[in-house]
Amino acid sequence: MKQQIGKTNALYPSLTTILGTMVKGRPNFITIAHVGIMNHGDPQYLSFGVSKTHFSNQGILENKVFSVNIPSRDLVTETDYFGIMTGKTTDKSSVLETSVMDGYEAAPLLKRCPVNMICKLARTIDFETHDIFIGEIVATYADEAVLADTKIDIAKVDPLLFDMSSLKYWSLGQPVAGAWNAGKALKKKQNE
Amino acid sequence: MKQQIGKTNALYPSLTTILGTMVKGRPNFITIAHVGIMNHGDPQYLSFGVSKTHFSNQGILENKVFSVNIPSRDLVTETDYFGIMTGKTTDKSSVLETSVMDGYEAAPLLKRCPVNMICKLARTIDFETHDIFIGEIVATYADEAVLADTKIDIAKVDPLLFDMSSLKYWSLGQPVAGAWNAGKALKKKQNE
Repeated sequence: MKQQIGKTNALYPSLTTILGTMVKGRPNFITIAHVGIMNHGDPQYLSFGVSKTHFSNQGILENKVFSVNIPSRDLVTETDYFGIMTGKTTDKSSVLETSVMDGYEAAPLLKRCPVNMICKLARTIDFETHDIFIGEIVATYADEAVLADTKIDIAKVDPLLFDMSSLKYWSLGQPVAGAWNAGKALKKKQNE
Repeated sequence: MKQQIGKTNALYPSLTTILGTMVKGRPNFITIAHVGIMNHGDPQYLSFGVSKTHFSNQGILENKVFSVNIPSRDLVTETDYFGIMTGKTTDKSSVLETSVMDGYEAAPLLKRCPVNMICKLARTIDFETHDIFIGEIVATYADEAVLADTKIDIAKVDPLLFDMSSLKYWSLGQPVAGAWNAGKALKKKQNE
């Protein structure tokens, strides 16, 4: 039996990321889980919904580049800290060790995150309260420890999945079935 | 040690959804995991990246409404089937039982999905190969079995999480820590 529960956003869990920016000459980091995948291809576009009240926005808008860092479960404390503290009053630049790639000094990377992407700002979509930054992936870096044959092993990344209903970060579970494969049994049955 | 791995999209896992549309007078369903959360508020906007080659796009563009159905793990076969078969040549309307809400006949709901959202089309963002449909949530419905005090219990939803690297659907794991809470220990430490 279904119940109507208002206009609840049920598009969870979502992947927890940490955006790296340079604001007023200082590396800044903000936790963002309101993310999206726009397409599948090259150029590859990703979206990040950031409230206009945040400090990071001006860095992204000015420099037109930012980093996307994927924290593992062992960084949950730091990840949450980046989300609850504002760069307006808190220097978050030395919480975790950072690095930069040549030419992308305004997209500081968090070395302890097993995966980092550098995105250039492709578009900004204006909503009432949020800037939606559409990043185009420029380069992706991954720890050898989370790679299997140059491909990312998501179980080893052990990402933090955000859920607004429980207000918790969740872990990834187990593989369930193959994509573009599990449905073949039904296809065969339908064709009989 | 980090390795550069091209421009790999590492924004996974993403939530697997099934969009319900009405195309040429027939309910159609397509599996979409390239989804996004734009903002947090009311109106609440969500994004769905759908290749322009798909059959569903014309239904969304014509009717300006669609449903977002969240399948549980037990529907993995049907979910994958909706993704590998095209509505151009396959009638997918009777794979799972459907229902409609008054006034939203062009947004057919899948009754066996524990959560359904009806979205009206707020904007379409045009990318080279994909239409990005920005839906504004109009109403959300949830099975009583996945509700705890009118809130969605994501563990009970048992969603399918898509990963492009492994080409698999994954399950949700366990809670790790409280959001907007786990970082407080570090905040306290930094203030000492």
